Amino acid sequence: MKLIENLKWRYATKKYDTTKKVSEDDLQQIKEAIRLSPSSYGLQAFKILDIKDKDIREKLKLASYWQPQITEASHLLVFCGYADVNDGHIDEYLNLKADTQGFDVELLKEFRNFMKVFIEGRKSGKQVWTAKQTYIALSNAIAACAELKIDSTPMEGFEAEKYNEILGLSSKGLKADVLLAIGYRSDEDKTQYDVKIRKPMESLFEIV
Amino acid sequence: MKLIENLKWRYATKKYDTTKKVSEDDLQQIKEAIRLSPSSYGLQAFKILDIKDKDIREKLKLASYWQPQITEASHLLVFCGYADVNDGHIDEYLNLKADTQGFDVELLKEFRNFMKVFIEGRKSGKQVWTAKQTYIALSNAIAACAELKIDSTPMEGFEAEKYNEILGLSSKGLKADVLLAIGYRSDEDKTQYDVKIRKPMESLFEIV
Repeated sequence: MKLIENLKWRYATKKYDTTKKVSEDDLQQIKEAIRLSPSSYGLQAFKILDIKDKDIREKLKLASYWQPQITEASHLLVFCGYADVNDGHIDEYLNLKADTQGFDVELLKEFRNFMKVFIEGRKSGKQVWTAKQTYIALSNAIAACAELKIDSTPMEGFEAEKYNEILGLSSKGLKADVLLAIGYRSDEDKTQYDVKIRKPMESLFEIV
Repeated sequence: MKLIENLKWRYATKKYDTTKKVSEDDLQQIKEAIRLSPSSYGLQAFKILDIKDKDIREKLKLASYWQPQITEASHLLVFCGYADVNDGHIDEYLNLKADTQGFDVELLKEFRNFMKVFIEGRKSGKQVWTAKQTYIALSNAIAACAELKIDSTPMEGFEAEKYNEILGLSSKGLKADVLLAIGYRSDEDKTQYDVKIRKPMESLFEIV
């Protein structure tokens, strides 16, 4: 199975080759895998920032415990969930649904009420909820990279508040949830030779 | 790209063909994709329950707003994050690492301290943190199913507290985070013909 082969090939890259860049073509495919990722209600309540600005990458490194991947990888993607999900976002989704599927949005009136009640019910949990959705997209981005033989590093070790400030996320209604550095491994990254550590099936699964 | 084709093929299945079962061979491959999923520190602080007991599936349906997939899909996987991550889990991981990679666990003493400080620092956020990891595994399970032309339905619409009770999760140190029903679509499921709704690239990505 292709996915299994790709998951075996990949590893959390520690050191990137700074001379190798991911091509625009490959990047578009990775973005397409992110775009096609499933999300709760199909809302896609997140945005992905592709940080090209070198000065900003330097600042983000300081907010990421100096991890070198932040500046040395070819690309840095910051997955940002919506800080809030409001009626406007629901209407935006329903309009997109009606447009895409070719019917009058008025037909979705009852479904709109249903969505609003359920989403409002999440209250303070909405930030966690949108963060979780970004992890599905992150996972597909990692798998897409692996299929293209591009290395990647999913990263949670950063100061989210500082990211929000540096990237002006609050004014955009966003918050930084998780990062993915992508590029090509350096020959010097010895962790690429490590045997992958995974629990055996029987301690990960239970039949009920 | 295979992953993109697979993500285009899949959809959140609403109605399953109750006569078709996922083979044991295919199930093993889906589980292997879950097992190989990346997780924070490689800890795999989760467990996946494969609910075969019909009576339990009926009870879970009542705790899932009567959604038919819970009982009608071939298999129901419940992704459960650890309710807490403690020193024992860290030691378990480090022992597995030392065993797998063939060195004395004592060499990881400093790394153990580092992990403990970071993980303890998450405090009450640990439950959210382990939940997020299950979403990476969930995403790979969905992609694995699609590659095998098996349908699936990721589901967040359930009462987690009731799941915890029905499945006795608290005593196992677990909590229900997200579900995946898997099986084969029914011909009667009209949503399979719906055009997929996704935001255009330019509203999902931003270059900084």
